[in-house]
Amino acid sequence: MSLEEFGYRGSLAKILKEKGISVYDRIEVEKNGYTFRGILMPKPELSHSQTLIIKLDNGYNVGIKIDAHSKIRLISKGKPAVPSPPKATSRPREDLPLVALIGTGGTIASRVDYKTGAVYPAFTTEEIYYLVPELSNIAKLDMHLLFNIFSEDMTPQNWTLIANTVAKFIEKGADGIVIAHGTDTMGYTAAALSFALQDLPVPVVLVGAQRSSDRPSSDAALNLINAVYTAARAPFAEVVVVMHGSTSDEYCLAHRGTKVRKCHTSRRDAFRSINARPLAKIYSCGRIELLSDDFRPRDKHRRLRLLAKFDEKVALIKTFPGMKSDIIDCLVELGYHGIVLEGTGLGHAPHTLLKSLKRAIDEGIPVVMTSQCIWGRINMNVYRRGVELLNIGVIPGEDMLPETAFVKLAWVLAQTRDLDKVRELMLTNITGEINPRTEPYSYPPMEV
Amino acid sequence: MSLEEFGYRGSLAKILKEKGISVYDRIEVEKNGYTFRGILMPKPELSHSQTLIIKLDNGYNVGIKIDAHSKIRLISKGKPAVPSPPKATSRPREDLPLVALIGTGGTIASRVDYKTGAVYPAFTTEEIYYLVPELSNIAKLDMHLLFNIFSEDMTPQNWTLIANTVAKFIEKGADGIVIAHGTDTMGYTAAALSFALQDLPVPVVLVGAQRSSDRPSSDAALNLINAVYTAARAPFAEVVVVMHGSTSDEYCLAHRGTKVRKCHTSRRDAFRSINARPLAKIYSCGRIELLSDDFRPRDKHRRLRLLAKFDEKVALIKTFPGMKSDIIDCLVELGYHGIVLEGTGLGHAPHTLLKSLKRAIDEGIPVVMTSQCIWGRINMNVYRRGVELLNIGVIPGEDMLPETAFVKLAWVLAQTRDLDKVRELMLTNITGEINPRTEPYSYPPMEV
Repeated sequence: MSLEEFGYRGSLAKILKEKGISVYDRIEVEKNGYTFRGILMPKPELSHSQTLIIKLDNGYNVGIKIDAHSKIRLISKGKPAVPSPPKATSRPREDLPLVALIGTGGTIASRVDYKTGAVYPAFTTEEIYYLVPELSNIAKLDMHLLFNIFSEDMTPQNWTLIANTVAKFIEKGADGIVIAHGTDTMGYTAAALSFALQDLPVPVVLVGAQRSSDRPSSDAALNLINAVYTAARAPFAEVVVVMHGSTSDEYCLAHRGTKVRKCHTSRRDAFRSINARPLAKIYSCGRIELLSDDFRPRDKHRRLRLLAKFDEKVALIKTFPGMKSDIIDCLVELGYHGIVLEGTGLGHAPHTLLKSLKRAIDEGIPVVMTSQCIWGRINMNVYRRGVELLNIGVIPGEDMLPETAFVKLAWVLAQTRDLDKVRELMLTNITGEINPRTEPYSYPPMEV
Repeated sequence: MSLEEFGYRGSLAKILKEKGISVYDRIEVEKNGYTFRGILMPKPELSHSQTLIIKLDNGYNVGIKIDAHSKIRLISKGKPAVPSPPKATSRPREDLPLVALIGTGGTIASRVDYKTGAVYPAFTTEEIYYLVPELSNIAKLDMHLLFNIFSEDMTPQNWTLIANTVAKFIEKGADGIVIAHGTDTMGYTAAALSFALQDLPVPVVLVGAQRSSDRPSSDAALNLINAVYTAARAPFAEVVVVMHGSTSDEYCLAHRGTKVRKCHTSRRDAFRSINARPLAKIYSCGRIELLSDDFRPRDKHRRLRLLAKFDEKVALIKTFPGMKSDIIDCLVELGYHGIVLEGTGLGHAPHTLLKSLKRAIDEGIPVVMTSQCIWGRINMNVYRRGVELLNIGVIPGEDMLPETAFVKLAWVLAQTRDLDKVRELMLTNITGEINPRTEPYSYPPMEV
């Protein structure tokens, strides 16, 4: 990768090039009488254009703003930015199921260079077997690094690309698919793939790690092993998220893609099924215990239907006390095609929004109501505000997660902009996103 | 109340007045050969200006659009809109603690007129003793109906009014305060009062009902009794929410005002302490079991400091995949004074927002980061995006709820618009909103 790809541009990049310096080289910088020695690191976005970042020998990164008086010197060339992958010692048996492993980013299938602190995604199947040797007993893996981005940067276009890649591997005969994904927006992508991959013949498993694989407490290995187990052997052909089910390494849970969200910033058991049971518990020994019999069974002869387009002009808007209509008016003026409200309680919003919401709907922009409670079901027939919102045409989101309703509306609007059809599709259960009745099970008990 | 206050305006109100018809009168309407008989009901907002609503004898409400050919006739005058309150049979002893009960709306302290289905808030102390006779054994109540609104319509101005009223009752010598409040935004109001009422001498208890008091499964009575118990006797002088702790009528929990949110649309145990232990368990017999010793003790001689202003130009914005900067730019152009982001994971946002966020901060608009995970703590030093956001000046919200960070920023901005001071206050624990370390306890176990 070039200096520019690592964020160094303009006159600073020019100086570094003149000295033959690349990112990860060991350099020395003199400024204001101080001397800094360390490894040149990638430059964060929006840092000052003249600032370079070096990792000192004590492990800390410092930013140094280079001026006319600064001196930069190359000490030694670093290792190449992408080290060559090590060789695995074991190979899978030919009769094992074939599982495609699609890399999209995140820390699950990555290797840390301890010298630079840089994290490299695993590029090859060889490397994956080397990192997690147990996998060679579970499946024949077919590794494909699709892209490598932070999951907070994932867009509807990325969802389309992932769905198309899954379709390609299913076409090639995969018995299951594993997608390595950053955890931040994994719930959104899981919902997106649930809608995009209709009539799925085999399991599609999203997996990530809450702690990167260089940390002793990493959940990466167990999650990846259990994800591959699920893809290779689970009896359901559903889009699921497989992540730790507790803080120990005892088991993972397979959550339905439309009913899962990340509920904790850092815990290993951050992912939760909301208003639904998880589909299965996967023990570290590989045993799969089904928790529900309500699923599409695996059937390699079923024909996948790909509906992988998403409208990119949909907004997810949370209401708050004192909220004014200006935010809704803005969305209309900016040409948004749909709005999902994360309202309060059973599906309410401040009265100050009513006129703007009515205007939006009258102009053909569907508005879907969900609840910031997260758990439970929308019921807009109980209180007057709910009825008023129904009367102006707001579509109740039933027991859908706000995130899933957002993804679904983007998916629906890519098929039709007709308000009646949008309403009908939003109120129809397409892929497990709406339960006919609310599952009481998933609301966790409070231990006191 | 006049026809206008019940939503009837213009020519329709004129017709009704000419016939001497008020809301809740029994009337007959003829239209297109059909005759409808029933009680004239209040008119929902944004219903068609010519539509009147009548409750038929079978209990259903119908809307009838009045045109030149419709005929309206008064059958009989209804009962007055506000029936006179019944008399209580018991009165509290003089030596009981004095508790002020402030009504703001919601279904907790209300009575349903079964003839019309209309819900009346309780207006007088007499009426409260009549509705819940047990209360006369717990406290001398001083009832004050401040206003009566849906909690989704609550604004920062309402928070100020409630705080001022609480101060007035404390000045008058109350041993505790109970505030009846709709549940939708009760968490926000609890946080607002926690900041507004500094150095509180006695408990301030928010209470509501998830099921209105006319339903057999109503949680109204137990919640109100336990709220009054807490206000009268709890050893802590904190703003708390007292609501059902389980689905049974066994006990309520007292949640700290800055750490509580509604997590279920309909369950009685919808309120949860997040990243914190509840302060106490209150059994239906009135026994208060403390769950934490980390509280401000009750002390009637402590001098309340009222800091009850809130900036009304603060927005709470949830990020989502593919989110563009236009929404942030809009807020800047609309003159918002502060933005709380509900980002992903440890405190991340799409790279597409970085430039607009930087512009906002450069223009003096503080941006605070919280997580849509709900549980856990912001840590923006782990991944590059976090560091980039810190570098442009985003303020990490620590383990604050997004809702609490929103309320706090509105409170801080009413005191200062100086970015450095805003940052310092946002990073300082003022009233239990930031824990020095994350409480692992509150993340509920997943039963599988």
